[in-house]
Amino acid sequence: MVATLGTRARILDVASRLMMRQGYEGTAIKQIATEAQVALSSVYHFFPGGKQGLATEAVRHADEHFAQMLQDALASKDDPAEAVVALAWVVAEYLRDSDWQDGCPITATALETVGRIPEIQQAVEVAFERWRGLVADKLRRSGFAEADAQELAHTVINTLEGAELSAQVSRTPEPMEIAGRHLARLINSYR
Amino acid sequence: MVATLGTRARILDVASRLMMRQGYEGTAIKQIATEAQVALSSVYHFFPGGKQGLATEAVRHADEHFAQMLQDALASKDDPAEAVVALAWVVAEYLRDSDWQDGCPITATALETVGRIPEIQQAVEVAFERWRGLVADKLRRSGFAEADAQELAHTVINTLEGAELSAQVSRTPEPMEIAGRHLARLINSYR
Repeated sequence: MVATLGTRARILDVASRLMMRQGYEGTAIKQIATEAQVALSSVYHFFPGGKQGLATEAVRHADEHFAQMLQDALASKDDPAEAVVALAWVVAEYLRDSDWQDGCPITATALETVGRIPEIQQAVEVAFERWRGLVADKLRRSGFAEADAQELAHTVINTLEGAELSAQVSRTPEPMEIAGRHLARLINSYR
Repeated sequence: MVATLGTRARILDVASRLMMRQGYEGTAIKQIATEAQVALSSVYHFFPGGKQGLATEAVRHADEHFAQMLQDALASKDDPAEAVVALAWVVAEYLRDSDWQDGCPITATALETVGRIPEIQQAVEVAFERWRGLVADKLRRSGFAEADAQELAHTVINTLEGAELSAQVSRTPEPMEIAGRHLARLINSYR
């Protein structure tokens, strides 16, 4: 049973990484099987929905992984503005550790399936909502009004998404550092 | 000569759209030729560098197109904060006009080639720099200090990038509308 769970998780890790780096369309199930070192039939055993089902699960897998990182970073500081600066820093470290190759694990898949594959698009939407929810919670607990917390959560996640891509392309942490600073300033302008 | 230029531009339009919707890896030169209604040999005639050279030119093509949209939107209002709100609105309209299928034309290609294909990555970097340069110019002309103008330009472009993806996934203009409002607030906090 442990081995079985291990195989499924390994397939998801590989699928998530490949789709992040080469997109949904550019990733074949066969390559996922090869890199996860499992038989093709094993991939279909765990993911009877084929590539589409596997991509949906890979988005959920990446969603949970990023949600954990987000939660930990936000919990590291009491003040929400300082917590967002810490979050930007944690993400920048993660980007740099991958030599700027790994960014948001769901963006490429999201872009390539939007308006085309509702199942995947919905998993992406759930992920974005969860991430925004964590940021909004932090702001709410610090006394921000409901509407402000929700709107700020949108901009925190969206700005970090854009800054990640920019950091990857320029291979510097600067866009993330600027994003953290500006988001803190924006948050502080509400109190 | 006119026909020749027309063919090249058509190939670039098709390549740009396909790579935006299905990524760099997922787009074959053959499909580009088919959809542009030209012979495969014609694609290689105009783009002897093959897919890599074509993608680089497609990024430059999209860069110029977006730079024009950006410039027009920024010029539509004297006040830089109002201009950024107008820009967010123009982008939201563009997204909605495509039924939320078309977003930033270079993001998917950027994500899939970062750290792997320097020629394309450099064209993406040049595009981001140009877009930031247009925003920074607008701020500078409105009396913003050089360092503030440059940093704000980063966040304007990055926030809009992230909000675009979010708007596409949720199929609503709300993320763009919030982004415009927050960016205006951030800009106004500097004066």
